Amino acid sequence: MTFPSLAALRAACADLPPPDEAAAAAVAARQAELTKPPGSLGRLEELVAWLARWQGRAPALDRVEILVFAGNHGVTAQGVSPYPAAVTAQMVQNFAAGGAAINQLARTAGATLRVIPLALETPTADFTKAPAMDEAEFLAAVGAGHDAVAQAPDGPADLICLGEMGIGNTTAAAAIAAALFGGGGARWAGRGTGVDEAGLKRKRAAIDAGLARHAGMNDPLELAAALGGRELAALLGAALAARRRRIPVMLDGFGATAAVAPLARLRDDALDHALAAHVSAEAAHRTLLDELHLAPLLDLGMRLGEASGAALAVPLLRAALACHIGMATFAEAGVANKEKEH
Amino acid sequence: MTFPSLAALRAACADLPPPDEAAAAAVAARQAELTKPPGSLGRLEELVAWLARWQGRAPALDRVEILVFAGNHGVTAQGVSPYPAAVTAQMVQNFAAGGAAINQLARTAGATLRVIPLALETPTADFTKAPAMDEAEFLAAVGAGHDAVAQAPDGPADLICLGEMGIGNTTAAAAIAAALFGGGGARWAGRGTGVDEAGLKRKRAAIDAGLARHAGMNDPLELAAALGGRELAALLGAALAARRRRIPVMLDGFGATAAVAPLARLRDDALDHALAAHVSAEAAHRTLLDELHLAPLLDLGMRLGEASGAALAVPLLRAALACHIGMATFAEAGVANKEKEH
Repeated sequence: MTFPSLAALRAACADLPPPDEAAAAAVAARQAELTKPPGSLGRLEELVAWLARWQGRAPALDRVEILVFAGNHGVTAQGVSPYPAAVTAQMVQNFAAGGAAINQLARTAGATLRVIPLALETPTADFTKAPAMDEAEFLAAVGAGHDAVAQAPDGPADLICLGEMGIGNTTAAAAIAAALFGGGGARWAGRGTGVDEAGLKRKRAAIDAGLARHAGMNDPLELAAALGGRELAALLGAALAARRRRIPVMLDGFGATAAVAPLARLRDDALDHALAAHVSAEAAHRTLLDELHLAPLLDLGMRLGEASGAALAVPLLRAALACHIGMATFAEAGVANKEKEH
Repeated sequence: MTFPSLAALRAACADLPPPDEAAAAAVAARQAELTKPPGSLGRLEELVAWLARWQGRAPALDRVEILVFAGNHGVTAQGVSPYPAAVTAQMVQNFAAGGAAINQLARTAGATLRVIPLALETPTADFTKAPAMDEAEFLAAVGAGHDAVAQAPDGPADLICLGEMGIGNTTAAAAIAAALFGGGGARWAGRGTGVDEAGLKRKRAAIDAGLARHAGMNDPLELAAALGGRELAALLGAALAARRRRIPVMLDGFGATAAVAPLARLRDDALDHALAAHVSAEAAHRTLLDELHLAPLLDLGMRLGEASGAALAVPLLRAALACHIGMATFAEAGVANKEKEH
């Protein structure tokens, strides 16, 4: 087992490599010489420095991998989603057949897609009645996510996009966020895939019931086990492995962000290697990004999950890197630089 | 001559094809069948409908062209830019050599790039002293932009990105915006390529002097001639030709947006075929987009011009179209749709 105990997982979460500021400084030095007014590529310039800082070398995006974890949720018994739970497995088949949005977006982004279903035939327990997962189930799911990155069949990627699929999982994500950052169902429940007003009320009530059921629990990892889901736990493991392997991470929407948030509660800088690809139409996503001090790249009203927002942001990174690598310097191009201030 | 008189240009600006709502409705009908919750791709869904509406057919992005017009400005005599005017021609050479940001961004976007310099050796007049262009000069520049689209060497594109290069042209763009929408240099002048505080004061003063010099002039086209520049006039011509040829347009930053704004003052719906790719770091750009009711796709703090923001938005459109064309329907994929409301 990758993590035989919560203590082993906790130790891994505490032992993280620092940023490589020398690699980031080398990027900034080159940016200053390129044929453009200083800073005029805005956030594109920061993105390249961020890649270098967490890759720990001259930045590259030769291999971008999208990982989508899927899981099923006992809390669907509370009527929190307009879709039947069977849709999780059906969508996993749709991913395999190439018919989902993420298949098209992965191709557009020049990224490979790996979908990892986690015991879909065994939903987690309904967290309003019991812990969603016991410790062994939780550790197995975290380990599956970790190993998907650490033992990737094609070797380490230059960037990993993290997303999820799981009917009912915005309810689990909201419960985790509520437990970590305070506020109840009213602060964190949203429409998800599109519940009606009655469904939204049931969702808020389920979150509040889960918080009450597991009150007094403070450890971020124990909360992720009690309120989360297998695909969310796997995302946490994948983000942790990426940090330890110096692979920058692009986070998708509310589900993926809530899934990795426990890492930031264990250690303030644990998500510094992660970028928020977008802010979704799920209202609590912005709240969560603010709590995590993450500034999203895109704001296009998306709310699909399955790493769709993360994949959409990849071309922005590719464009930023192409400018950094391909542009001429003022000296090379024979372009006059800014007049010296007198 | 494409436009022998202002009257001929005015007639062309008034004779615009309407949107094809049937093509847009066909897109919406297919979107509703694809394997995703309704509306969950957010703005990506609107983008595809917008493409269809203005292409007037099933949407395609096989050929995307980036047009960058370049011009020189007499108003640089007022000390409004930190770069010497010679940089305009030097950057045109840099574009030809492939060393500028837009060369890298065009490649990333899968777009062709055409750069059209307009009489760089003959700057416009200093608009604080005289009209920047006389009627013949203005009509020639508008015609050059029009013909670049209407007589494109490789036939009509599916999408055109419009951008500019011209030392001093944020001052000209600000003067046009001020004349069209009110407010003086204080409302519309910004840092451009990075003027210092003294330069910003000179910029504001130049704009106010230009407005005073040409006070009483109300016609949007006459204002564009008196305060604008050749590359800005060409952008107006290109946007007009695109509309008349059913080619959707992606606008770059403040310069490109101000350049085409006179069209919207002639006819409220004249820019409905144009999308704002981004909102730039030039503060007046947001003000101008608000005046034009344009909602930018990206907000990444860029302020480079040369169509860089427009090119960066192209992959978003490609991704949106790839989802629309490539996704499976609920029926094809055997995925259960939303439970019917009771």
